[in-house]
Amino acid sequence: MPWSNRKNSELVERARRVIPGGMYGHESTALLPADFPQFFSRAKGARLWDADGNEYIDYMSAYGPNLFGYGNADIEAAARKQADLGDTMTGPSHVMVDLAEALVSMISHADWAMFCKNGSDATTMAMTTARAYSGRSKIIVAVGAYHGSQPWCTPNRTGIVDDDRRNIITYEYNNIESLEAAVRQAEGDLAGIFATPFRHEVFADQMIPSVEFAQAVRKICDAQDVALIVDDVRAGFRLARDCSWSILGVQPDISCWGKAIANGHPISAMVGSHRFYAAARSIFATGSFWFSAVPMAAGVETLRLIRETRYLEQTVDLGDRLRAGLDEQAAAFGFSLRQTGPSQMPQILFHEDPDMRLGYAWVANALKHGVYFHPYHNMFLNAAMTAADIDQTLQASERAFAELKADRARIPANENPLVIARLKRAR
Amino acid sequence: MPWSNRKNSELVERARRVIPGGMYGHESTALLPADFPQFFSRAKGARLWDADGNEYIDYMSAYGPNLFGYGNADIEAAARKQADLGDTMTGPSHVMVDLAEALVSMISHADWAMFCKNGSDATTMAMTTARAYSGRSKIIVAVGAYHGSQPWCTPNRTGIVDDDRRNIITYEYNNIESLEAAVRQAEGDLAGIFATPFRHEVFADQMIPSVEFAQAVRKICDAQDVALIVDDVRAGFRLARDCSWSILGVQPDISCWGKAIANGHPISAMVGSHRFYAAARSIFATGSFWFSAVPMAAGVETLRLIRETRYLEQTVDLGDRLRAGLDEQAAAFGFSLRQTGPSQMPQILFHEDPDMRLGYAWVANALKHGVYFHPYHNMFLNAAMTAADIDQTLQASERAFAELKADRARIPANENPLVIARLKRAR
Repeated sequence: MPWSNRKNSELVERARRVIPGGMYGHESTALLPADFPQFFSRAKGARLWDADGNEYIDYMSAYGPNLFGYGNADIEAAARKQADLGDTMTGPSHVMVDLAEALVSMISHADWAMFCKNGSDATTMAMTTARAYSGRSKIIVAVGAYHGSQPWCTPNRTGIVDDDRRNIITYEYNNIESLEAAVRQAEGDLAGIFATPFRHEVFADQMIPSVEFAQAVRKICDAQDVALIVDDVRAGFRLARDCSWSILGVQPDISCWGKAIANGHPISAMVGSHRFYAAARSIFATGSFWFSAVPMAAGVETLRLIRETRYLEQTVDLGDRLRAGLDEQAAAFGFSLRQTGPSQMPQILFHEDPDMRLGYAWVANALKHGVYFHPYHNMFLNAAMTAADIDQTLQASERAFAELKADRARIPANENPLVIARLKRAR
Repeated sequence: MPWSNRKNSELVERARRVIPGGMYGHESTALLPADFPQFFSRAKGARLWDADGNEYIDYMSAYGPNLFGYGNADIEAAARKQADLGDTMTGPSHVMVDLAEALVSMISHADWAMFCKNGSDATTMAMTTARAYSGRSKIIVAVGAYHGSQPWCTPNRTGIVDDDRRNIITYEYNNIESLEAAVRQAEGDLAGIFATPFRHEVFADQMIPSVEFAQAVRKICDAQDVALIVDDVRAGFRLARDCSWSILGVQPDISCWGKAIANGHPISAMVGSHRFYAAARSIFATGSFWFSAVPMAAGVETLRLIRETRYLEQTVDLGDRLRAGLDEQAAAFGFSLRQTGPSQMPQILFHEDPDMRLGYAWVANALKHGVYFHPYHNMFLNAAMTAADIDQTLQASERAFAELKADRARIPANENPLVIARLKRAR
């Protein structure tokens, strides 16, 4: 069946009437190439089908939540067993305690856990806990770092008032001098410092921080007796079976989790050390569905798979294989890629591609050949992927490169005003 | 089997080690009578079983989400069918459009919908949309009204900085003069006014607003060209098959929904009128699980049941029956109740009970007889309840009143410091 997007177009048309812009948020295709489908009908393992039935090997993994494959049998069995007992009840099930114990046993710095729904619930609770602990106000975050879409952290300030940002100070990621300047700017009113495990911003190369940087953050937080908060929502359990900064040998006080911890079931978490137990206990945070048992049961099973399978080594191996194959193909067709970040969470940008027209055209080509790559957001491999999937992906990417080379002179400038604006901001 | 709480006590002990305070948020039993169970093992229809297997007729309905009974067969079938296709994917399913169309068709003032996870996601998005529309900053909310636990609205200010509240102005609910004073206080910088459908705060009588009050809010918002926002998260579809203020003949610009719209599956929503479409489109709001398809499929089926069944009339009838029966019993045993709010969302407090010791002792008695009443939070009937459940409830409540009368002279003062503090605040 030839690739078609008729049904998707009809849905987009219907959606525009009843949803502002037809879609919103990080899964909106507003900044993607024109043919990228907005609506999906099915997902299984590493595969995704759009509303028209086109099949893709999906390198977005739901923007992170899919770690063990869509509809993983073990995790879904645990979820259904709990659903038969009860989900959203007048109080939590014992699985809440099981899940907290599992997280605490796996995350070195964690002595306790609190569960919530959004990643930004966890980051907001971490900010509030840091302020409750210190009695101080200022929060330091990296320039451009994404910690959620709440007023204090959303990257788009439309409808946001200055007072929401009055206590947020920024530093350049992985730059000790810049961090020290931010600490001075806090003038003794510092409450906490946020860091993502590595820099994984959209429209930009990813950056792995140095051990020296991570140690410097730790040292500053110790000296000031304030919270070092690692925002592991996006990368959690994709780099390590522990907090991501454990790789650097640095333990935060608080870390934030979400996305993959229940393989797509809706749950996020803040975990922390004993020193912050009383502060975490003193804040008020809650939500209608925060204590639902099904995502917790799914989380318990996901954590078991994290402990007991080679999912991590496997996604790294497959990511390395994909990265090497793509570099080779790019060179063969006269292109050069900037492949950054951990290979299991790859960001793929093109050298000499200031308006990203090459990257956009290449992923649009790959899409038609059954591979869902992303032109500006880091991607996520998952443990349902196999070596055969990578081989199939490389066949598709080779065709995409060949078409890119053939069309090179005719590829139009990237004229999406939203993309142009983001590129300007990312520079 | 006699009532026991051994397993619950063991869980509470384990929980304290790995969860700050053992539990947090609105489902914490910290402010409830000592014997109230914290953990639950099962829920079905109108019934709930705690960790020790004690069975209750549950008048909390998960603090609102349970509208058609726990594990409603039609809704669960729709959820499972969608789970087999896909839940959290790289984009939404067509059910997102179906759900938006259903909400828009049912809510008179709504022309569009945006989905999220927490009630406070919806209220925060409404605030941001109101500011984006008006270009102004000040938000007016009723004193003590609960709009969520984000920094701008949480009732507990631990870890919250003054800047988070600098643009929030309060008024006395259902008091036009007080509202007008708040508008003057905004000094031309007003962005929007929040109102709950009725006053449903903890530790206080509920209050139905007058038509004149609702009309006055509408008139002010029209005159200032700012958003009237009804926070229908708690009461939505429990008073009407439309926005709750439709009963008063007043249409808001934006309303916020959550809790019961998918019968316990995690989803909330902001809906609004055409005039606010562009503003809603201009803000950035998203979350890892906001576009998951299972809660949307559950929502579509829940809305069908709302349209096609007599759930509303049934919960009102049962609520009236319960209310009349309790008043009669109270009088027979020499007590007097303050039963306020809609009978399907009853608040039951005792007259001449300043420290609530009577109310606390009565619900503790009822608990041992198989009925889960709440001493300080409004309750929620659900459509799985039957006349037989109400009869069984009234048998239990009668025994609870008889015990209360027998023990009256010996009931200890309510000495929980958290409760004392809340009572002081509610007065």
